[in-house]
Amino acid sequence: MRGMELTRRAFVAGLGAAAVAGRRSLFAAPDIPAVNGAALQQRIEGLSVFGRPAGGTFADGVSRVAYTDADVAGRRYVMDLMLAAGLAPRIDPAGNVFALRPGADSSLPPILFGSHIDSVPNGGNFDGDLGSLAALGAVEALDRAQVRTRHPLEIVVWAAEEGIAFNRGLAASRIVAGDVKPSDMDQVWNGLRRGDAIKKIGGDPERILDARRDKGAWRAYLELHIEQGGTLERSGTAIGVVQGIVAIDRYEARITGVANHAGTTPMAERQDALVAASYLTLAVREIVTRRPGRQVGTVGKLDVSPNAPNVVPGAATAVIELRDLSPATLTALAAEIRERAAQIAAETKTTIEIVPASSNPPAQADAAVQDVVEGAARELRLSSARMPSGAGHDAQMMAQLAPMGMIFVPSVGGISHSPKELTRWEDCLNGANVLLHSVLALDRQ
Amino acid sequence: MRGMELTRRAFVAGLGAAAVAGRRSLFAAPDIPAVNGAALQQRIEGLSVFGRPAGGTFADGVSRVAYTDADVAGRRYVMDLMLAAGLAPRIDPAGNVFALRPGADSSLPPILFGSHIDSVPNGGNFDGDLGSLAALGAVEALDRAQVRTRHPLEIVVWAAEEGIAFNRGLAASRIVAGDVKPSDMDQVWNGLRRGDAIKKIGGDPERILDARRDKGAWRAYLELHIEQGGTLERSGTAIGVVQGIVAIDRYEARITGVANHAGTTPMAERQDALVAASYLTLAVREIVTRRPGRQVGTVGKLDVSPNAPNVVPGAATAVIELRDLSPATLTALAAEIRERAAQIAAETKTTIEIVPASSNPPAQADAAVQDVVEGAARELRLSSARMPSGAGHDAQMMAQLAPMGMIFVPSVGGISHSPKELTRWEDCLNGANVLLHSVLALDRQ
Repeated sequence: MRGMELTRRAFVAGLGAAAVAGRRSLFAAPDIPAVNGAALQQRIEGLSVFGRPAGGTFADGVSRVAYTDADVAGRRYVMDLMLAAGLAPRIDPAGNVFALRPGADSSLPPILFGSHIDSVPNGGNFDGDLGSLAALGAVEALDRAQVRTRHPLEIVVWAAEEGIAFNRGLAASRIVAGDVKPSDMDQVWNGLRRGDAIKKIGGDPERILDARRDKGAWRAYLELHIEQGGTLERSGTAIGVVQGIVAIDRYEARITGVANHAGTTPMAERQDALVAASYLTLAVREIVTRRPGRQVGTVGKLDVSPNAPNVVPGAATAVIELRDLSPATLTALAAEIRERAAQIAAETKTTIEIVPASSNPPAQADAAVQDVVEGAARELRLSSARMPSGAGHDAQMMAQLAPMGMIFVPSVGGISHSPKELTRWEDCLNGANVLLHSVLALDRQ
Repeated sequence: MRGMELTRRAFVAGLGAAAVAGRRSLFAAPDIPAVNGAALQQRIEGLSVFGRPAGGTFADGVSRVAYTDADVAGRRYVMDLMLAAGLAPRIDPAGNVFALRPGADSSLPPILFGSHIDSVPNGGNFDGDLGSLAALGAVEALDRAQVRTRHPLEIVVWAAEEGIAFNRGLAASRIVAGDVKPSDMDQVWNGLRRGDAIKKIGGDPERILDARRDKGAWRAYLELHIEQGGTLERSGTAIGVVQGIVAIDRYEARITGVANHAGTTPMAERQDALVAASYLTLAVREIVTRRPGRQVGTVGKLDVSPNAPNVVPGAATAVIELRDLSPATLTALAAEIRERAAQIAAETKTTIEIVPASSNPPAQADAAVQDVVEGAARELRLSSARMPSGAGHDAQMMAQLAPMGMIFVPSVGGISHSPKELTRWEDCLNGANVLLHSVLALDRQ
């Protein structure tokens, strides 16, 4: 650590220019901790083959749903990279991959950072992958620069973040945060028992409760992630300093009309569940949009019954999802939607039942950690802006155990959960270096 | 036929009173041709067990989709009834069941009448079943009354009317009308080859072209059917004299937006295919409803992609179905819908492609046959009204080969294609007797 301050300042002065010019040569110096951008790109591309559509390219995205063979292979790929970096990855009972880099003071709790590598079906190659591989890149950068931190550093690849399998997001970080009971292992999804799924990725469902960790287990938790929205790109901002993760409330709207013959039922006598669902879908959009703020509301799933061209729809089920940092806003929105739904039901001669399906509270990022991330961006001469995360992340589970912070980088076109998901390599590297320097700043505190 | 006119007049005078009182005792007289109402009810109830939901009753409807085991069993039941009535049922290469009752003059073409017994999934016990079993009941009535007609009489149970299997309605009467080529037998639906399906019900796909019949093969075609709408019931009319069967045009609306993260994509930046589909669904309803007339328009089928609660829908496919007796009206409606779809696409930042999927021309009922049906109702002192059929029927295929007529009876609540489908037994019997007396009137002409 001798001469570190001076070296760091000299490095940073150069890095700003390098970031602007897109050069990476400065990172090659052995005593300056900086992530290797070429290696980061190569690894994101390397990981992308696990779950890639047959005959496709990197641009065709990835389907690496948790617990599939592609997920197992992708995890193996990342663990092999950890081993090559001299780390000893271990899999906890929930299936999360952890790897520890010792610090100078083993009495201090580790600083934890990482992300996930499972994807949605037909997803992109940056969601989760960037944060997971940048965490490894940050550790390697410290090795190359021969920097020994005071705190132990721990990197993590969370399992089953996306909530496709077993319909539960943040599935394995949730367990670490204590939200688990042994009977959860008996859940079944697509014929697969959850315990068997966890066993498949190297977890230990018999000891699932041992995956729980106590508050204070880590000094802090950091996660680098793509924004998945278009705010940073539109404003030309390099780094998003996440203020917190929005609350998510989901409701199931169960609409019942009368299934009837589409040829013989006069228009005036129809009780068409899809017509009611259409009014409701537009009402959700209108109610959410008309008030100021960043709240969003989506009908993403709609199932129509009997769903035949020649039958007036008799039933429809719509999932309404609402997100905002403020739970009070969500409650108010839901009340307005309920009121409108009652009007729609009366006008369409249907019944609409709106049933709460799930409710995730918001998670605030730690104020001091936000300052650290903002400071790291400033040091690296990168523009930054504070912003909420509209997406859920494992970080919100970790916020229950440690001071939490997240670093966002721009998503081209704001597109995510799609093969078109893209973050420019310079932005990936900028984010990785902000992660690295945030870790170093936290270590100094 | 000796003394027939006198007998018939005496019978009819009594029948009017019987119909009003709901009594059926007059039908028991051996020399008066009248359908046995108790037997008709018993057989409709007997047929209902083939395809009945497990543990259900008659009121739980039926799922007797063409080519299923339930369909095969139901057809067997009806053929056994034909055999017991002294008829010799035969299955044509397309799978239709025919049975001939000889007439006095074998040089005359037969009068054909009947319906179908396949159902939609979760359908009712009257759609098709009534017309099929009433046809048999009419022949038995003539036997009991020892009436010999001049023309041969032929009864038919058409196969695969509903268009569930292989997505093609009127599948087997269509073949009889000549709309078939040998390669059709290679169509695949749910893993089932069409030729194998036809073989399963006793047809002969190798000789499928032999199922075609020439124009003039029959003196006339008559079909008794439930209305499947609420017009007759609302107006308190016993018999519908069908003027024709509406034209049906179907379009597939392919809506393309951008699938995106439901948490991170601001409302203003969404290109939500389900929002566009909702506007389109409501537009179809509004455009069809605002002009006077009996035309109907339905979005009965809507599929959303990826259909996940946390993804802004990227694509949706809606099937738009339009029906009217006038093809010109359908063309005008489609043009208005296209125009509106273009506006919706622009407003929602999606693309909407509207592709014609199928077009069935209208089929006019023969004017003389309409008069015959109306006259038979009048003789039986039953009220009647002329009306279009909003539903497709095998009769529209037969209209290409012979003078065609249809007899409608009231549907309680106008409900059909549903377990709640119901026609009162008196109305079933009224319809069966109008069928019988229409056949006799045609025979006399």
